Amino acid sequence: MARSATQKRIDEVLARREAAIPAEWRVSSSNPTQALHELLDDRELAIVDLSAIQLRDEIAAGRITAVAATTAYCKAAAAAQQTTNCLIELFDEALASARRLDIEFTRTSRPVGPLHGVPISVADDVDVHGHNASAGFLSLVDKAVREDAHAIAILREAGAVFFCRTTKAQVLALETVGYFGTTSNPWNRELTSGSGEGALLGMKASPLGVATDVGGGVRSPAAATGVYGFKPTSGRLPAVGVSVIHPEGWHGMPRTQGVLARSAADLELYVRLMCEAEPWHRDPALVVRPWNPSRHPARLRVGVMRDDGVVAPVEAIQRALEIATNRLRKTCDIVEFQPFQSRQAWDIARRLYWPDGGARVMDALADSGEEVRPLTKWIIDQSGHAGRILGTEELFTLCAQRDDFRTELAAHWADAGIDVLLMPVGPTPAPIHGTAKYWNYTSYWNLADHPAGVFPTGLFCNADDTRDPHAFPRNAVEKEIWESYDPAVQAGAPLCLQLIGQRGYDEDTLWALEQVAAAVNA
Amino acid sequence: MARSATQKRIDEVLARREAAIPAEWRVSSSNPTQALHELLDDRELAIVDLSAIQLRDEIAAGRITAVAATTAYCKAAAAAQQTTNCLIELFDEALASARRLDIEFTRTSRPVGPLHGVPISVADDVDVHGHNASAGFLSLVDKAVREDAHAIAILREAGAVFFCRTTKAQVLALETVGYFGTTSNPWNRELTSGSGEGALLGMKASPLGVATDVGGGVRSPAAATGVYGFKPTSGRLPAVGVSVIHPEGWHGMPRTQGVLARSAADLELYVRLMCEAEPWHRDPALVVRPWNPSRHPARLRVGVMRDDGVVAPVEAIQRALEIATNRLRKTCDIVEFQPFQSRQAWDIARRLYWPDGGARVMDALADSGEEVRPLTKWIIDQSGHAGRILGTEELFTLCAQRDDFRTELAAHWADAGIDVLLMPVGPTPAPIHGTAKYWNYTSYWNLADHPAGVFPTGLFCNADDTRDPHAFPRNAVEKEIWESYDPAVQAGAPLCLQLIGQRGYDEDTLWALEQVAAAVNA
Repeated sequence: MARSATQKRIDEVLARREAAIPAEWRVSSSNPTQALHELLDDRELAIVDLSAIQLRDEIAAGRITAVAATTAYCKAAAAAQQTTNCLIELFDEALASARRLDIEFTRTSRPVGPLHGVPISVADDVDVHGHNASAGFLSLVDKAVREDAHAIAILREAGAVFFCRTTKAQVLALETVGYFGTTSNPWNRELTSGSGEGALLGMKASPLGVATDVGGGVRSPAAATGVYGFKPTSGRLPAVGVSVIHPEGWHGMPRTQGVLARSAADLELYVRLMCEAEPWHRDPALVVRPWNPSRHPARLRVGVMRDDGVVAPVEAIQRALEIATNRLRKTCDIVEFQPFQSRQAWDIARRLYWPDGGARVMDALADSGEEVRPLTKWIIDQSGHAGRILGTEELFTLCAQRDDFRTELAAHWADAGIDVLLMPVGPTPAPIHGTAKYWNYTSYWNLADHPAGVFPTGLFCNADDTRDPHAFPRNAVEKEIWESYDPAVQAGAPLCLQLIGQRGYDEDTLWALEQVAAAVNA
Repeated sequence: MARSATQKRIDEVLARREAAIPAEWRVSSSNPTQALHELLDDRELAIVDLSAIQLRDEIAAGRITAVAATTAYCKAAAAAQQTTNCLIELFDEALASARRLDIEFTRTSRPVGPLHGVPISVADDVDVHGHNASAGFLSLVDKAVREDAHAIAILREAGAVFFCRTTKAQVLALETVGYFGTTSNPWNRELTSGSGEGALLGMKASPLGVATDVGGGVRSPAAATGVYGFKPTSGRLPAVGVSVIHPEGWHGMPRTQGVLARSAADLELYVRLMCEAEPWHRDPALVVRPWNPSRHPARLRVGVMRDDGVVAPVEAIQRALEIATNRLRKTCDIVEFQPFQSRQAWDIARRLYWPDGGARVMDALADSGEEVRPLTKWIIDQSGHAGRILGTEELFTLCAQRDDFRTELAAHWADAGIDVLLMPVGPTPAPIHGTAKYWNYTSYWNLADHPAGVFPTGLFCNADDTRDPHAFPRNAVEKEIWESYDPAVQAGAPLCLQLIGQRGYDEDTLWALEQVAAAVNA
């Protein structure tokens, strides 16, 4: 498509997005918090202050209507869009859905399900009936009206109200930039928010967000904006929609659905709901595993990993981990956890991402004439075989390396004898726009296929978190990441940590996440 | 290797096998039952008459020693070897292991585990410490001393005594022929036994046999010799050893461990033991799913599939299915189940078996100069790409077809609303040597990845089960299979049936198998 035709198409799509926000919801402030207060009245501000569970309970008690909840969140999302550019679409049917739920509630005096009236935001690769998941690609906008993804059908059945779709990066990248522009962090607009979901949740403009995590797509945005996020073991939750990156039939790198929320309990509510719907009856890609928490240990044995051995976290992150670890000592046993084959894990993951050398992505971009973003090119180049499809035997060798890595990691974990592992979500706080290039702290656990949660520490990056002038980087990546860090600019960015559970023990990981987050924030 | 060198090697290997059977265990009869009575005294015959659980209980009660049990089974296996050619190796350390268990029992008055003193036979692709799993290939004999496979370690920990390794086909084929010669069916030596495990169990020369099922390798032998067999959903039980067929890292066609036994309760004991060992902590290829039976329905809803739509079962099998179905009507609800995409399933499976076009198998054969058996050549040719490695995109397309098939089958099963499915194990009773060419009745459920059990009906093929002279075959495969059937020759072959469970519900499938087998054999 010629450049001008592409731009014309972009203008059309963005004008439509613009039009979905009513004139009376326009804000004048460019500051997210101010915009929120400009648009929402006190009652609405109180609504968006509630967690999903609190909101659900208020609605079920008849004290808040689904319409009131949905209105508050639609207005909050409008404010978020105007200040962070985080939306692809505000759903105009959301209020009608809420109204139907209120009528049903009046008729029966009972909620239709455990999410009755709770608004839910979805990332742009999630299929929702009547909307098109374009996964960040201009060429996919308006292609094929899709049905509800399996996960969405479960949420709808539970009474959820879908109210908006959010921006995501073209591919994998943590920087959210595309035909729609750049999404910013509501805490500090010079920083990335990881994704539209991150921006939305980070400014209380959604109680629950559904997204996909194949390298950190749920966890990094949660960390960038100071909220909670969870990526389950693969095969527990149904996939949510389209993937442009991977060929159908290719499952080499687990691509799992995940959830962002504003409390650990909300994450658990969500995952439990998915499991209790027994999604494996419909989807043979899922394991048959009913929700089944173990008996919880009296004292959690928490491993702490301070450095992955490739890129050491910068001072702000070190500080947060140190403070959190000290706060945990009262209630948990703390053991140091040695990093295990971090470099090798990235070496396997970066190639597993691109069995086709990026051909599908490049085709989808070429289709609309959309620009290949620098970080898109960068991650495809990282594969080492950009533009070349892997041979069958190469693929088998790579998968065998992945399997061996997992087996050896299982032994390493068993030797450490830990219940969960506390570690950074990444080496820096929310990165300055355009610099997010190392995400092995998260993608490692996609490759390993362990459940992983993110929680805020209540701490923030500040200008005093300066780099140690004597520290000498061990490699070029570490040098680049360290140099991208500027606490003077990143000051105010929330500091989150990651909690990894044992593979397959999603229930127990969520439980531990709640305990650990509470102890750290006590 | 030159022909004569190959033959010399075969002679050496077989002479060693011969030498492992003591002179006093030689039999004169070529009839399996007579050979058994020739070699075993009444007390030993009574021992091999017990199920694994019964034997275990007798040993735990101090009424039978592990040495007595092992001696009886070693003698029975020697008789089986001399009449059916079913062994690769009789383990000379078995009696010493049994003696150690007896000493331990005397010392502590307690069994070391739930299989204390129970002899277990293993197929030739199962890794046992100090023995070499050669998977039916001459070139692998004496290669690399291997450690216990994970499953074997679990069984050893539970007190099992490994006493022999059994023959298996070069690849996949149900006919067991290799450098060791041909293995025959103890019920009728003109027929195949499916595998050495089949022959052994079929003449009570083992209480429990461990094997692999990637197309029917556990179920067809069980059916050929009238015993019980079970193949779980993939990812529940640890793999047991070597695969020559598939590249490491390739999991396109599930290859699962399975078990043969002489009662349904023994199958359950075995699978439960494996699950309760929580093998997923060591093996990341396994799903985290504790043994977890559902609440059982008061009346099972049993689907019956009489014909897969490609090769209709011959009269003997039809008769067995009809009688069994009628016997079940008293306690179960019976519904007709329509076959679903049988031809397409085979079309996917036959290609998924050979991502490398059979190169690994042909190399392993060429290595020793071993002959390529006709049924080996036949199944590789079935792929449609013998000698050619599949391209990466071809592979993805094929895997996507498999995924779609599974999803559609899940909907088909859900529509039928059945708990389990009763159907033939194959279109004929134990095939006449060299004719076993259609195993889609079993491989279908490997592709679909459902648990599947086999049980005897107490019925046998007889000379009256003649073919309907008016039946007209629908295709060339059906014609060939029907023509291979000769009730005059196959008379005396046991008739078994297959019970399929819901994917992932191995516990419930085993429970249903016990109920259904009991009702059919009442």
